[in-house]
Amino acid sequence: MKEIKESPIVILNFKTYLESTGKNALKLAKSCQTVAEETGVNIMVAPQYADIYRISQELDIPVLAQHIDSIEAGGHTGSILPESMKEAGAVGTLINHSEQRQQLFNIDAVVKKAFSLGMSSVVCTNNIETSAAAATLNPDFVAIEPPELIGSGIPVSQAEPEIVEKTVELIHDINKDVRVLCGAGISTGDDMKAAIDLGSEGVLLASGIILADDPKRALLDLVSKI
Amino acid sequence: MKEIKESPIVILNFKTYLESTGKNALKLAKSCQTVAEETGVNIMVAPQYADIYRISQELDIPVLAQHIDSIEAGGHTGSILPESMKEAGAVGTLINHSEQRQQLFNIDAVVKKAFSLGMSSVVCTNNIETSAAAATLNPDFVAIEPPELIGSGIPVSQAEPEIVEKTVELIHDINKDVRVLCGAGISTGDDMKAAIDLGSEGVLLASGIILADDPKRALLDLVSKI
Amino acid sequence: MKEIKESPIVILNFKTYLESTGKNALKLAKSCQTVAEETGVNIMVAPQYADIYRISQELDIPVLAQHIDSIEAGGHTGSILPESMKEAGAVGTLINHSEQRQQLFNIDAVVKKAFSLGMSSVVCTNNIETSAAAATLNPDFVAIEPPELIGSGIPVSQAEPEIVEKTVELIHDINKDVRVLCGAGISTGDDMKAAIDLGSEGVLLASGIILADDPKRALLDLVSKI
Amino acid sequence: MKEIKESPIVILNFKTYLESTGKNALKLAKSCQTVAEETGVNIMVAPQYADIYRISQELDIPVLAQHIDSIEAGGHTGSILPESMKEAGAVGTLINHSEQRQQLFNIDAVVKKAFSLGMSSVVCTNNIETSAAAATLNPDFVAIEPPELIGSGIPVSQAEPEIVEKTVELIHDINKDVRVLCGAGISTGDDMKAAIDLGSEGVLLASGIILADDPKRALLDLVSKI
Repeated sequence: MKEIKESPIVILNFKTYLESTGKNALKLAKSCQTVAEETGVNIMVAPQYADIYRISQELDIPVLAQHIDSIEAGGHTGSILPESMKEAGAVGTLINHSEQRQQLFNIDAVVKKAFSLGMSSVVCTNNIETSAAAATLNPDFVAIEPPELIGSGIPVSQAEPEIVEKTVELIHDINKDVRVLCGAGISTGDDMKAAIDLGSEGVLLASGIILADDPKRALLDLVSKI
Repeated sequence: MKEIKESPIVILNFKTYLESTGKNALKLAKSCQTVAEETGVNIMVAPQYADIYRISQELDIPVLAQHIDSIEAGGHTGSILPESMKEAGAVGTLINHSEQRQQLFNIDAVVKKAFSLGMSSVVCTNNIETSAAAATLNPDFVAIEPPELIGSGIPVSQAEPEIVEKTVELIHDINKDVRVLCGAGISTGDDMKAAIDLGSEGVLLASGIILADDPKRALLDLVSKI
Repeated sequence: MKEIKESPIVILNFKTYLESTGKNALKLAKSCQTVAEETGVNIMVAPQYADIYRISQELDIPVLAQHIDSIEAGGHTGSILPESMKEAGAVGTLINHSEQRQQLFNIDAVVKKAFSLGMSSVVCTNNIETSAAAATLNPDFVAIEPPELIGSGIPVSQAEPEIVEKTVELIHDINKDVRVLCGAGISTGDDMKAAIDLGSEGVLLASGIILADDPKRALLDLVSKI
Repeated sequence: MKEIKESPIVILNFKTYLESTGKNALKLAKSCQTVAEETGVNIMVAPQYADIYRISQELDIPVLAQHIDSIEAGGHTGSILPESMKEAGAVGTLINHSEQRQQLFNIDAVVKKAFSLGMSSVVCTNNIETSAAAATLNPDFVAIEPPELIGSGIPVSQAEPEIVEKTVELIHDINKDVRVLCGAGISTGDDMKAAIDLGSEGVLLASGIILADDPKRALLDLVSKI
């Protein structure tokens, strides 16, 4: 029942803020779920590994891992076993976030691994060229986030609309089945509307919501114009 | 109440085996707790990140993380925030396991971070020299594991007793407060007895128990001669 | 004058064998140059960093770096500054060799950097999907090397001909300007002929020549059937 | 004949500045040699890999590598084979520079490797604790460089004299044979004099000289008060 529904999509990356750790993570995920239910927008959360089980047990919102490692079960102390994320309740995973960049070789392997486990894959990229490269690997989503705008408060969908547009076009030339998200600097309803108008199916965001005085209100604003 | 008690000590590193993931992790931790209660031996478990919360909620056995990253709270997608491990229930952490080797700089930073959070630090090392180096960083424990013996079934305490003895001696020359564990190839009561006789205060082990036909019986055997 | 000429192309990766270090590197490069002159085949060499200056000073064969880092000039102790490789005499560089795998983000940055310096880029890949991804980044060459065959003596062009064929086709669908090489297990004239017949423009190889009793003879054999 | 002589010692790390690459590297090394000859101070240079051969061929100044990898000869494309550095003319190597931090495990292995090749080892560290750890590994030198001062123009020997003093003391408690250098922010004669007065045997520096309007004059100033 926790499937990833139709667009528009909002993925809230909890990163490693104290405001989104442990009890705070649960509370934030609850706000996300409430807003999703009230507005019909498909909101997903990507909390830290230790919080996945608890959130997926106590709530109904789809949960993503922030990263999985390209490993088989066995002797890999400290690594992120994909099967562990799945059993804890993750229905998908971010891959290659700009704060967790991966080797090309591993991105390919991890997208395939996620697919084999029935998990959705969201490959993050930093520009048009790497977005096209990611699309050739057949992930479910490519999320483009120009790194210079991450956490800047300057929304990619408004500051560099042509990047989003070109990325959508180029990705669909290569692989029609890949859905495009955009991120970096997104926080308001106008930002999200611009993202959708440019052809993306949603947004990936973090600090704009997590660090807001009232995250629930910030989420409501985010989805207010779509 | 889940404090690390007096020696002898057994730390079971769950690594990333399917036999020690999710429900299996909980079951294995329960066996560890039962053996600890029945025998009075101090057994600790180091499960995967996603299983820490559940085990620490449902059981009373001390739980360690397998690794923590040297980061401050903030934008570190996919990294292991020490505070997240603590809030999930970890009372300490392995550091620099041979499958998760760290930069010298980070080992120092992470030992200090664990200390500041009231978490125990268990620095793993691969030989006498790196054990001495680790001791200068003031961790609670140094666990020496010659990498060629890990998962070999050949116990370090019997195959290379002089390494354990010399390590204990050299570490205590440098820092009397550091407690020494040994690992690699340990699985039987004789292995553990030899480890204690050589001056170590316990063992760090994994596959010898996790992959045993009957892990609880294997644990009982492990602690039978001390 | 040391430009990269028309196909067929042979790139000899010197790796870090003692047989291809220092004086041995110079001698091996000289053999490569002699064979290139005698046969008209375009042979390039990729020696270790410390040997690039000497080889490019004393010989006329095109020299590639084995890797360059995605850095700007400045404070990067121990890293490989692209400008340093160029000034030493390298006309291009391998990128993302299976023994030096790079983040997707860096492959993109380094291909662009090489281009801006007028250096040729040879991106190594491990399968069909990553070859397609590499092609979207506009390198001069993509060299596919299934890792399980590297150093195996089993030639990719004969063991897995369909991989080479499909890679050529898929890459040219994405980007007609990218030239395809293949590697892994290549050592004989038959291997190289098969590689060309499958649509590639040449081969990337190493131990089959470097460790041969008589590298010059091995090179002559390699190019004997094209 | 290019042996490392008695203290005081100056090691000039060329890093990856264009001002210290290729022809510029040779010219800078020549200035270092002239100053060494004129003043009797033991100056060593650590140029980029590609410049080691040329400098050691054309000059008489001792040359260090900026880094070596913990590898055996063989299939390690793009890595730094210690034997390659030695054959190119390096008489020693920096290890674990703050811009090239290494795993504890590797620092130990590389110090041993350098020793086995008759090369001097200079392990860089970031604070008192890691300096002590480095000393247990028996390198020839430990060079302490508080990272917050590197490139700052604020000399460690004047800004944090107690760090240098304590490091010298602690290192000599652990291992009398290790010689201590200090770095970070060093550029003037007063800085160097302070370093020597605090018990260190010399300095490791970079931008203060490399980027000076007149590097030779800057070097003469550096060694003017000892």
